[in-house]
Amino acid sequence: MPRFMKRASETVGLAPGTLVHIGDKKTEQVRLSLIEYGATHFQEKSIETVEESFPSKDEPSVTWVNITGLHDLDVIEKVGKHFNLHPLILEDIVNTGQRPKMEDYEGYLFAVLKMLRYDQEEDQVNAEQVGLVVGPNYLLSFQESPEDVFDPVRERLRKGKGRSRKAGSDYLAYALVDALVDEYFLILEIFGEKIESMEEELVANATRQTLQRIHDMKREMIFFRKQVWPLRELIGALSKGESPLVHESTSIYLRDVHDHTIQIIDTIESFRDMLSGMIDMYLSTISNKMNEIMKVLTIIATIFIPLTFVAGIYGMNFRYMPELEWRWGYFMALGVMLVIAVLLLSFFKKRKWL
Amino acid sequence: MPRFMKRASETVGLAPGTLVHIGDKKTEQVRLSLIEYGATHFQEKSIETVEESFPSKDEPSVTWVNITGLHDLDVIEKVGKHFNLHPLILEDIVNTGQRPKMEDYEGYLFAVLKMLRYDQEEDQVNAEQVGLVVGPNYLLSFQESPEDVFDPVRERLRKGKGRSRKAGSDYLAYALVDALVDEYFLILEIFGEKIESMEEELVANATRQTLQRIHDMKREMIFFRKQVWPLRELIGALSKGESPLVHESTSIYLRDVHDHTIQIIDTIESFRDMLSGMIDMYLSTISNKMNEIMKVLTIIATIFIPLTFVAGIYGMNFRYMPELEWRWGYFMALGVMLVIAVLLLSFFKKRKWL
Amino acid sequence: MPRFMKRASETVGLAPGTLVHIGDKKTEQVRLSLIEYGATHFQEKSIETVEESFPSKDEPSVTWVNITGLHDLDVIEKVGKHFNLHPLILEDIVNTGQRPKMEDYEGYLFAVLKMLRYDQEEDQVNAEQVGLVVGPNYLLSFQESPEDVFDPVRERLRKGKGRSRKAGSDYLAYALVDALVDEYFLILEIFGEKIESMEEELVANATRQTLQRIHDMKREMIFFRKQVWPLRELIGALSKGESPLVHESTSIYLRDVHDHTIQIIDTIESFRDMLSGMIDMYLSTISNKMNEIMKVLTIIATIFIPLTFVAGIYGMNFRYMPELEWRWGYFMALGVMLVIAVLLLSFFKKRKWL
Amino acid sequence: MPRFMKRASETVGLAPGTLVHIGDKKTEQVRLSLIEYGATHFQEKSIETVEESFPSKDEPSVTWVNITGLHDLDVIEKVGKHFNLHPLILEDIVNTGQRPKMEDYEGYLFAVLKMLRYDQEEDQVNAEQVGLVVGPNYLLSFQESPEDVFDPVRERLRKGKGRSRKAGSDYLAYALVDALVDEYFLILEIFGEKIESMEEELVANATRQTLQRIHDMKREMIFFRKQVWPLRELIGALSKGESPLVHESTSIYLRDVHDHTIQIIDTIESFRDMLSGMIDMYLSTISNKMNEIMKVLTIIATIFIPLTFVAGIYGMNFRYMPELEWRWGYFMALGVMLVIAVLLLSFFKKRKWL
Amino acid sequence: MPRFMKRASETVGLAPGTLVHIGDKKTEQVRLSLIEYGATHFQEKSIETVEESFPSKDEPSVTWVNITGLHDLDVIEKVGKHFNLHPLILEDIVNTGQRPKMEDYEGYLFAVLKMLRYDQEEDQVNAEQVGLVVGPNYLLSFQESPEDVFDPVRERLRKGKGRSRKAGSDYLAYALVDALVDEYFLILEIFGEKIESMEEELVANATRQTLQRIHDMKREMIFFRKQVWPLRELIGALSKGESPLVHESTSIYLRDVHDHTIQIIDTIESFRDMLSGMIDMYLSTISNKMNEIMKVLTIIATIFIPLTFVAGIYGMNFRYMPELEWRWGYFMALGVMLVIAVLLLSFFKKRKWL
Repeated sequence: MPRFMKRASETVGLAPGTLVHIGDKKTEQVRLSLIEYGATHFQEKSIETVEESFPSKDEPSVTWVNITGLHDLDVIEKVGKHFNLHPLILEDIVNTGQRPKMEDYEGYLFAVLKMLRYDQEEDQVNAEQVGLVVGPNYLLSFQESPEDVFDPVRERLRKGKGRSRKAGSDYLAYALVDALVDEYFLILEIFGEKIESMEEELVANATRQTLQRIHDMKREMIFFRKQVWPLRELIGALSKGESPLVHESTSIYLRDVHDHTIQIIDTIESFRDMLSGMIDMYLSTISNKMNEIMKVLTIIATIFIPLTFVAGIYGMNFRYMPELEWRWGYFMALGVMLVIAVLLLSFFKKRKWL
Repeated sequence: MPRFMKRASETVGLAPGTLVHIGDKKTEQVRLSLIEYGATHFQEKSIETVEESFPSKDEPSVTWVNITGLHDLDVIEKVGKHFNLHPLILEDIVNTGQRPKMEDYEGYLFAVLKMLRYDQEEDQVNAEQVGLVVGPNYLLSFQESPEDVFDPVRERLRKGKGRSRKAGSDYLAYALVDALVDEYFLILEIFGEKIESMEEELVANATRQTLQRIHDMKREMIFFRKQVWPLRELIGALSKGESPLVHESTSIYLRDVHDHTIQIIDTIESFRDMLSGMIDMYLSTISNKMNEIMKVLTIIATIFIPLTFVAGIYGMNFRYMPELEWRWGYFMALGVMLVIAVLLLSFFKKRKWL
Repeated sequence: MPRFMKRASETVGLAPGTLVHIGDKKTEQVRLSLIEYGATHFQEKSIETVEESFPSKDEPSVTWVNITGLHDLDVIEKVGKHFNLHPLILEDIVNTGQRPKMEDYEGYLFAVLKMLRYDQEEDQVNAEQVGLVVGPNYLLSFQESPEDVFDPVRERLRKGKGRSRKAGSDYLAYALVDALVDEYFLILEIFGEKIESMEEELVANATRQTLQRIHDMKREMIFFRKQVWPLRELIGALSKGESPLVHESTSIYLRDVHDHTIQIIDTIESFRDMLSGMIDMYLSTISNKMNEIMKVLTIIATIFIPLTFVAGIYGMNFRYMPELEWRWGYFMALGVMLVIAVLLLSFFKKRKWL
Repeated sequence: MPRFMKRASETVGLAPGTLVHIGDKKTEQVRLSLIEYGATHFQEKSIETVEESFPSKDEPSVTWVNITGLHDLDVIEKVGKHFNLHPLILEDIVNTGQRPKMEDYEGYLFAVLKMLRYDQEEDQVNAEQVGLVVGPNYLLSFQESPEDVFDPVRERLRKGKGRSRKAGSDYLAYALVDALVDEYFLILEIFGEKIESMEEELVANATRQTLQRIHDMKREMIFFRKQVWPLRELIGALSKGESPLVHESTSIYLRDVHDHTIQIIDTIESFRDMLSGMIDMYLSTISNKMNEIMKVLTIIATIFIPLTFVAGIYGMNFRYMPELEWRWGYFMALGVMLVIAVLLLSFFKKRKWL
Repeated sequence: MPRFMKRASETVGLAPGTLVHIGDKKTEQVRLSLIEYGATHFQEKSIETVEESFPSKDEPSVTWVNITGLHDLDVIEKVGKHFNLHPLILEDIVNTGQRPKMEDYEGYLFAVLKMLRYDQEEDQVNAEQVGLVVGPNYLLSFQESPEDVFDPVRERLRKGKGRSRKAGSDYLAYALVDALVDEYFLILEIFGEKIESMEEELVANATRQTLQRIHDMKREMIFFRKQVWPLRELIGALSKGESPLVHESTSIYLRDVHDHTIQIIDTIESFRDMLSGMIDMYLSTISNKMNEIMKVLTIIATIFIPLTFVAGIYGMNFRYMPELEWRWGYFMALGVMLVIAVLLLSFFKKRKWL
C-alpha cells in the first residue's frame, strides 16, 4: 500500500514550503557529485558541499549536480538557496509521494519523475522519486538511493559520444528522462513474459494461485499506469516547445520519448484488457471443471439409486411375495437392474451427458 | 444517505436568494471571530456583531472574519449586507448541500468548499461545508461547526512565519484551501490502511463481513470522489490566473494544491480499481470454498452408494440366491465392495478430484 | 416504454413544420392565461383567444402568456402566427417527445424543457413537456396539463417580491426553469430515501422483490438522466451570455441553476454507482444463502450415507456372517456407526464447514 | 454479418477511383428519374440516359436526378462525367459498405447516408446506402433498390406545398435526410415495443429464447448505433453552415434533424442500458428458479435419508437385537422416524428454507 | 506476446540515435530496389548500393527507393547519410516495435506504419513494420520482408494508369498507405466470417473450444485495434494539410483513407461488443446445460429416495409387524410406492420442473 499512498500525516498543518522528508531513508549519507562538461572539456568530481559547485555556474559549460539521498534537509535547503529555488520545489523534492509533474518557473524548469524498478523478490514494481531542476546551463538531479539508471548517460558524457557534450542542459535532461523511460520498457518486457507464462498456465493447469497472480499483475498495472500516465502529458507539453529552455533540436528528441510513453500506456492498456480476459477464462475453467466433477458423480449416484430401490423391494419381509419363491427370481431381479442401468446409461448418452 | 443528498424540499418555490438553512445545526450559537494582520501587525478578537469589523475594512491590511454556525440567518444576512454580497451567495452559504464551486463576482470571489473528516465511530467520511468570500483586502469564511482544520493557518499568522503575513487575502485563501486538502490526504491514508488490512483478510479468512466492508469502502470512495472532483476544476481555474484578485506569486502555490487534488483523484481511482479487483477475488474465493466442500461431500456419497447397492442385493429375500449359501459369500461380498471403493477412489485420483 | 420513446409514426412523411400533436391529451380544453407586469403594475387574466394579448405586446412591460393543453392545433397555430414564430418551433411544441433543447432564433429564444413529477402510484417519474418562447418583452409557455410547478413564480409576481417584477422576460424565464429544476431535487430526495430503505432491506431480508426494486430504480435513473443531461448544456450555454436576450444580471442566476443541474447529474451518477453495488451485494447475498442451505443439507446426507451402508451390510442374508451371531454384534454395529458419525463430524468441523 | 462488414476483397489493389460495385444487386435494371422544379413549375420524367438531364442543368430551377440501382458501372460513370464528379465519389457511391460521411468538394457536397429498414421476417434492421451529391442547382441521389422513403418528398414537390418548391437544392437535400431520419424513429418505435414485451416476458415467463431475443436486440442496437453515430457529426457540421451551398434558412431545418439524430442516439443508449439490465435480471431469474428446484429436491432427499437409515438398522439380521422382539418395537421405530422428520422439517422452517 | 511487446532490453542505455535492429530477421539479404518515374517516363531497377540512387535525386521526377530487410545496419546508415535523415528516424526504422506514428521533419515527413497480415496457420494477425520517408521528389520505404502489399501500386506505376505517374511523392505515399489499409479490410473480412461461424457454433453446439476461440478473437481485436488506432490520428493530421509536402489534390485521397481507418475502428468496436455478448451467451448456455443435467438427475434421485425408504421399512425385522402378515401386504406396499411416485411427479410437473 505505501506504494500507492505515502504517509502525508506529517506535513499536515505545516506552512507551505516547509521541508519534510516523506519516504524511506534509502542511503546512509547524502552525497553530491558534480559533472561539468562542454563541447571540448569534461570534469567529474565528488563534492562535499554544494558551495563547491559555485564557480562552474558561470562558465559557458553545463554543470550537472547529482544529489543522492533526500533525508538530510540541511543539504537540500543549501542547494535550494545556492540555486535560488522556490521553497515549494524543495518541499516537493523531499516528499517522495509526489505525482510526476512539471512546473515552469521563471529561469528554470522543475520536474518530478519516477524511477521504476522491478523487484524480483517482492515480485512488484517499486518507484523512486527523481527531482530534476533544469536551468539554462545547469541541471540538478535529486534521487533517493545511490542506485540509478543514469550510468549510461554519464558514460556517454565521459566518452563525449554523439550530441551529448555539444548540447545544452535541456538535452541532458532529455537523456535522463529517456534513461528512465527505457527502464519502463524493461519492466513491460518482464510483465509481458509473465503474462505469457500465465496464459499457458491457464490452459494447462489453472489453480487458485494462477488467479492470485493474475490479480497481482492487474494491480501492478494499476500502479504502473498511475506512474506513466502523467508523464505523457508532461513530456508532451515539453516537446511542444512551451518553455524557452528547451531548444528546437531537443524537441525532436522529446517527441521521441513522448511516443515511447504513449507506447507504454498503450501496452499497459492491452495488458489490462488481456488480464481481464484471463480472469474470465479462469473463472469459466474452474466452473467447467467443477461442473465436470459434479456431473460424473451425480450420474453414478443416479444410476445406483433406482437399482438400490429394486434391491430394497426384494429385501422386504412380506409373507406373500410371489417373486421370492420363483426359481429364477433372483436372476430376474438382477436382470431388471441391468436393464434399468442400461436404459439410464443410454438416456444419458443420448443427451450427451456422458 | 443525507450525505449524498440533502433535503431540498424546504427551498422549493422560494424566490432566488431567499435564505434557508439546510443541514444540521452543529453549534449552539453563531460566533464571529476577526483576525486582522499586515506585514508588521497582527490582531485577533472575538466580535459580537459584524459591524465591528467595519474599520478594519479600510486599513491597508487583511481582515479575516470567520463565522461559525450557519443557522442564524440574521447574522448571515447582516454579514452579506455589510460586505455587499450577492443574495445568491448568501443562499449558497447557508445551504450546506452545495457542490464545491467557485464564482467570480465583480470585486470578490466566492467559493464553496468541503471540509472532510473521517468519523471513526460511523466509519465514514463526513463533509462540512465551508464558504469563502475573498475580497481585495478581506476574507470571509463560513463554517458549520467550531471544529475546523484552520488552526495551523491561524498559528502561522500569529507567529508571522513565512509569507503568511506579507501576502494578501488571496494567499490566505490559498492557505485555507491547502489546509482542507491536507486533511483529504489524511483520510486517504486511513483508507489506504484499511484497504491493505482488507486485502490481508481476503487472503487469510474472507467472510461475508469482508465483502460488506469492501462494499462500504467503495461507497466511501464514491462520496469522496464526488467531493474532490469539482475541487480540481475549481482550483485549476483559479491557478490559471483568471481572476485579478489572485496574484501571480499565489498562482504558483495554487498550482501546487491543484497537483494535490489531481493526486487525490488519482489515488481514489486506484483504490476503486483495487476494490473492484478485491470483490472479484472475494467472490472467487467463496465459490472456490463452496466447490471444495461440495466436491468432498459428493465424493464420499458417491463411493458409498454403489457399496450400499451391493449390500442391498444380498439383503434380498429370494429363496434361491446361490451366493448366500456359499461358505465365503459374505467375505466375498465385502471383497467386492472393497474393490469397487478402491476403483472409484483411483478413478477420482486419476482425474485429480482428490 | 412510452416514456422513453413517443410514437413518431404519425409524423413520418409530413412536411417539416406540419403540426401533429404527439402525446396524451392531458386536459379537456386548451386554456390561455395572461399575466402582464412591470416594476409598478401587475395584471392577471384568463383570455379566450390569443388576439387578446395583442395590446400588451407593445407596452413597456413583460407579458407572460401561458397555454395549457397542446392538442388543439388551431390555437397553437394562432399563437404562432400572432407572435410570428418559426413553423419548426410550433412543430416541436406539440410533439411532446422532444429532447430538452434550446434554439436561438432571431428575435427570440425557444426552449423545450421537461417538467418531471414523481407518480406515487406507478412508482415512476413522469415527464411533461414545457415549451418556452422568450422574446424581448414577452414570454410564452406551453404546457400539457393544468397542474404545474409555476405557482410560486406567479405568487411572487403577484406580491412583487424581490427582483421578480423589476427584471425582464429573461429573468422570468430563469424563474420558471429554476422552478422546474427545484422539482428535480424533490424527486432526487425521494429516490435517495428509497435507496436508503433498499439498502437496509438488502442487509435485513433480501428477496427477489428487492432486486426488482433496485432494477426499477436503475431504470428510473436512466430516464431521469436522459432528461437532465441535455438541460445542463442548455443552461450552461445560456448562462455564458451567448444570447443578447439574456442580461448580465440574469446570467448570475442562470449560473446558479447550471450548478444545480450539475449537482443533480452528479447525484444521479452516485446513485447509479450505488445501485450497481447493491445488485452485486444482492447476488452475493442470495448465492451465499443458497450455498448455506446446500452445505447443511449435504452434510446431513453425507453423514447418514456411510451409516446406512453399515446397516446395509448387516442386513445381508448370507448364511455365514460371523458378526451376526455375536452376542454384542448389534451394539458393536451401533458403536461403529457412532464412531463413523463422530469422525465425519469432527472432519467437517476441522475444515470449518460447520 | 454482411451487415457489419461488406466484402472488400474485390477492391484490394485497385487504383483509387476504380469503380467496383460492392453489395447485393437489388434491382434488375438501373433506372433514372428526373424531377425539375422551381417556384412556379414542376416536371417529372423517367429518362433513359443521363445526357437527357443536360438542358435542365442550366435553367434557374432545381434538378433532382434519382438513380436507382448501383450495379451498372457504365451508367454511374456517365453520371460522374456529366456532372464532373471526383472519381473517389463514384467509387464510394457504388461501394455500399461505406460509413455515413460527408465530403465538401469544390462546387458540390457529397454525402453517404444509410436508409434503414426493419425487416419483419428476419427480425433485423437492414441498411441500404444512399449517395447524395448536392450542387448549387441540382441534386443527385443514388439508391440501391427502387423502394425508398422519399415518396412523401416527391409528393410535396408535386403539390408544391410549403417551402418545398421555393427553396433550393440544399433544402431538397434536407428533406431527403429528414425522410431517412424519420424512418429511424419508426424503427426505434418497433424496438421500444419489443423491449417492452420482452420486459413483461421476463417477469412472467423467462426462457432461454427470451435471453436470445434480448441478445439479438442488443446486436441490432450495435448495428443501429453504428449507422446513426456518424450521421450526428455529419449533420451537425452541415447545420453549422460550414458549406456555402447551405443557406442560412436551411440551417435551421438541419439543426432540427441534428436534434433528431441526438435524440435517436440517446434513446439507443437508454435501450442498451435497459437491455443490459434485462440480461442481469434474466440471469438472476434463471439462477433463482434453479436454486428453488435444487432446494426443494434436496430437502426431500435430506429428510428421507436419516429415516432410511433407521429402517436400515432394524433391517439388520443380528441374532440379538432386543428392539426387534419388543411388542411395540415396530410402532416405536415408526414413531422415531416421525419425530426425526418433524424435527428436520421444523429446523428447515426455522431457517426459512421452506 | 512478442507481438504486443518487442524486446527492448537491447537498446537500454544506448545513446539516442544508436541503431539496434529489434525484431526477427525475415529475409537473408538486404535488397534495394529503385523505381523512378514521371509523367512520361518510368524506370525500375535493382540497385546494389544506395549511392546508385544519387543521380535520380536531382531529376524532376519521383524516385522511390524500397529497402527490404532491416537487419543490415550498415545499409540503413548509408541510406540515412545519403538522404540526410535524422538519426532518430533511422533508430525508429530498425526498431520494429514502434507504434505507428508520423513526424514532420524539415524537408521530409517520416511515418512508421504497420503491414498487417493474417497468418492462417497460427490463426493470428502478424504485423510487419514499414517505415516511410517522404521527401519533395523521393520516397524511401523500409520493410522487413520481401513479401509486401505494394505490388498493385508498382503495377499501376508501370502501366501509368490514372494519376499515379503524374502526381508527386505525396500521392505515392498515399497509394502505399491505401494499399496497407486495404489489407486491413481483408483481415476484418476474415474476422467477420469467423465471428459469424462462431455465432452459429454457439447456438448449435457450444464447447469449451468455442469459448477459447472467442477469447482468442477478442485478443486479436486488442492487437488489431492497437495497430489501427494511431493510424487514424496520423492520417487525419496528414489529410488536414498540415504539411507543405502534401498537396491539396492528395488531401482528398488521404481523407478517403482516413474514412477507411475510422470505418475499420468502428467495425473493430462492433466486433468487440459482439464478442463480449457472445461470451455472455456462452456462459449462460453452459450453465443452462449444466442446470438441465442436474435437474433431471436430481429429480430421478428424489423420486426413488422415498420409495427406497418405504422398501426399507418393510425390510425391518421386527417380530410384530402386522402388514407383513397381510395377504395383500406386498401389493399394497407396491401401490403405496406408486402413489408416492405419481404424487411427486405431478408436483414436479405442476412446478414446471419437468
